[in-house]
Amino acid sequence: MKSIVLLSGGLDSAVMLYMCLREGWKPLCLSFRYGQRHGRELECARRLAALNSLEHLVMDLPEIFQSALTGVGNIPPSFDRSIVVPLRNYLFLTFAAAVCEQRDISDIFIGVTAEDEDFPDCRWEALDKLEEALRLGGFNLSNLKIHTPLIGMTKVEIVKVGLELGVPFHLTWSCYAGGSRPCGGCLACQKRMNAFKALKVEDPIERGGETSLL
Amino acid sequence: MKSIVLLSGGLDSAVMLYMCLREGWKPLCLSFRYGQRHGRELECARRLAALNSLEHLVMDLPEIFQSALTGVGNIPPSFDRSIVVPLRNYLFLTFAAAVCEQRDISDIFIGVTAEDEDFPDCRWEALDKLEEALRLGGFNLSNLKIHTPLIGMTKVEIVKVGLELGVPFHLTWSCYAGGSRPCGGCLACQKRMNAFKALKVEDPIERGGETSLL
Repeated sequence: MKSIVLLSGGLDSAVMLYMCLREGWKPLCLSFRYGQRHGRELECARRLAALNSLEHLVMDLPEIFQSALTGVGNIPPSFDRSIVVPLRNYLFLTFAAAVCEQRDISDIFIGVTAEDEDFPDCRWEALDKLEEALRLGGFNLSNLKIHTPLIGMTKVEIVKVGLELGVPFHLTWSCYAGGSRPCGGCLACQKRMNAFKALKVEDPIERGGETSLL
Repeated sequence: MKSIVLLSGGLDSAVMLYMCLREGWKPLCLSFRYGQRHGRELECARRLAALNSLEHLVMDLPEIFQSALTGVGNIPPSFDRSIVVPLRNYLFLTFAAAVCEQRDISDIFIGVTAEDEDFPDCRWEALDKLEEALRLGGFNLSNLKIHTPLIGMTKVEIVKVGLELGVPFHLTWSCYAGGSRPCGGCLACQKRMNAFKALKVEDPIERGGETSLL
């Protein structure tokens, strides 16, 4: 069964990819360049797709969005609106649906989690409504389904599933900054570190190693 | 009142722009490069915005969409699915809404007409549902309104209003092909020619002239 997986190269979408593979999906991986501070995440996405012999599309979006994630201002230590790229998920999902329309695909997977609910476009009410809208927007889209398998899961639960599925965590990147190792201070680093710590497992990304090649 | 007008440089959105100006809106004009066969439309959009001293943003979208409008295959003489760029309006509106989120704007104008209903993402049910979805997707978007002032209007009615408002039709481009004059054969040319003919008015674009500079 063909599907589209929105693959950022972060930890969440990587685990979701492996969940899809276990369920027998044949994912087309879709990533976006939208002015991120660095290319490490995308390089991880590329490697994850290649490792699993999956098609990988990378789309360039206009870099109009001012956000701490796209290099404007400092990266804050906790959630604030400066890290929000407006309607990012809506744009990703609408592009994904356009690919669905062209390739007769009906299933899109997006890795929003229980911890993303500060972002309006990560909430299920919003994604549900967008799914309704997308179904009306094409000739082939009436059965379109936006899957959110991680939406009830915390970071700890996601890492746990990832460990069970053998996700190559050294090929995932979470840190908002673009150093050769994770900064350890940003919100994404903190959440990731806490999750591995809670499970008493070492995060391979901490060692550097392969990621220093990215 | 600040608003966003999706300005393609075609006849419909040009008339809509002048309707907005008459109503006292201060529009930010937004156009997209998405692999169109030619730049004439965008050049018209640029001139229309400049003529009215309006800010004009042009965004580049990834050119992934195979369609007769983006140079794949021949341009058909009547509607068929080869001229559909999937979810084009949804993408335009979602980018527009992202700009609204950043600039505290609540009103977007899109020039879909009564004659566009073959395109699923031009129908009011679809646009209505997308509006609902977009309102949920941001921090500032709960009052977002997608205005479709042309949705009940035929091409003849639109040209009539445009003539009353003094729209510079020589700065609008409709033909799907990219010649120095309109081809006369494509669907867009036919509709435009028939509208001017019905009103017994000469379309300045037929004379070439200024458009030959585009």
